[in-house]
Amino acid sequence: MCQLLGLNCATPTDASFSFTGFCQRGGGTDHHADGWGIAFFEGKGLRLFVDPLSAAVSPIADFLQHYPLKSKNIIAHVRKATYGEVSLQNTHPFTRELWGRHWVFAHNGDLHGYEPYLHSHFRPVGTSDSEQAFCWLMQELAKSHAALPSIEELTITLRELVPQISQFGTFNFLLSNGEALWAHCTTKLHYLIRQHPFAQATLMDRDWTVNFADLNQPGDRVAVVVTTPLTSNEQWTAFEPGQLIVFVDGTPLP
Amino acid sequence: MCQLLGLNCATPTDASFSFTGFCQRGGGTDHHADGWGIAFFEGKGLRLFVDPLSAAVSPIADFLQHYPLKSKNIIAHVRKATYGEVSLQNTHPFTRELWGRHWVFAHNGDLHGYEPYLHSHFRPVGTSDSEQAFCWLMQELAKSHAALPSIEELTITLRELVPQISQFGTFNFLLSNGEALWAHCTTKLHYLIRQHPFAQATLMDRDWTVNFADLNQPGDRVAVVVTTPLTSNEQWTAFEPGQLIVFVDGTPLP
Repeated sequence: MCQLLGLNCATPTDASFSFTGFCQRGGGTDHHADGWGIAFFEGKGLRLFVDPLSAAVSPIADFLQHYPLKSKNIIAHVRKATYGEVSLQNTHPFTRELWGRHWVFAHNGDLHGYEPYLHSHFRPVGTSDSEQAFCWLMQELAKSHAALPSIEELTITLRELVPQISQFGTFNFLLSNGEALWAHCTTKLHYLIRQHPFAQATLMDRDWTVNFADLNQPGDRVAVVVTTPLTSNEQWTAFEPGQLIVFVDGTPLP
Repeated sequence: MCQLLGLNCATPTDASFSFTGFCQRGGGTDHHADGWGIAFFEGKGLRLFVDPLSAAVSPIADFLQHYPLKSKNIIAHVRKATYGEVSLQNTHPFTRELWGRHWVFAHNGDLHGYEPYLHSHFRPVGTSDSEQAFCWLMQELAKSHAALPSIEELTITLRELVPQISQFGTFNFLLSNGEALWAHCTTKLHYLIRQHPFAQATLMDRDWTVNFADLNQPGDRVAVVVTTPLTSNEQWTAFEPGQLIVFVDGTPLP
């Protein structure tokens, strides 16, 4: 299994607090030591860092914890390999281009006997069940819409597609195209919204407290989605099994 | 205009010597200060670092100069923007997946009045002429071969496709799928092969000399392709205009 972290924000946001706590789970406070990755959208542009080392010891992860890249949509992953060897090609997040946008996907869970019919042009590079599921999602989205549809239309299509994968096992995932963050839970996923009035937060996995009131403006708003809560003194909401939530500008859409 | 750097190697090779000299041209010794990027293949896996900052001052570029990632196929680019604004989405190298392989592309030059018919599923994310050319190449390769062909077959197809783009202007480019490095010249591109017996090399853009005999084994072999020679005491070969060379395991194929 693995752990997921996603941020969707109203304004470009520095994720180093959440990412630092999250990295400890990549071989430090938890056993997800088979690689890690993080993707930052900047407008339509994308930075993707992937590394087969453990996040707790990776020099690149250490660098990024101290070099704050601001982004409105961020997806990170620490991996505990189940299907697919430990290698760069199997390291999440995965990315593909569709309709002139980058798409980023990370998955937590196992899919059993999942062999999707990939008849179109999205093919896995690696050997993980996760990348197969992502390629199938991209293929079916491409068949469903001729060009980039609205976030609402995409969400309707995803609600039709996702159960066709999650019947094969655990399919907690994060997906973003830089405009929105889609988060789906079959077993475990939590979120919170940080907004005005901002308060203090203390990491669970490392001795670090910040007062977000000192760092944010009233118009800032951040949705944080994570497998298990990152902080000990904030109110996290658990997803329901089967729930797909789409976040835009730091807010879950109804 | 921009500058290109590519390495194709028989064994995974640390590119920090060449990359360090090259980065100086991104706003230091030369004026290509509108972003930079570098892609490293590790097997079928890919690491891609892109940054709209000048390479000469970018903290990520500085980190990579001191954190040697070993790879058999590397493509780097420093950008001087002509078509397309300075932004992450227009920063080379670009990447797409085709036939279950990552493909990486970087371009030096301007294409005038180039508006390719992109009727398939590769669409530009940004606004550069370079990414349009890459999408068209991927589209036409996908139409020409049902699955990943041999390097020789790919080269034949590329020799048919490339003149259809280069008639629009300057089209020096580097392309790799992790198996080979294709390098095409319309105006300026140079290469050399470093192999046994290895010798000393001194960077032109920075005070740094290495003795590759101290760093390499007899079986190592590296082809370095670059817009203008990186070292002052090695023998660089200039490409002919219109020449497309494919490098495999550090050797140009006949």
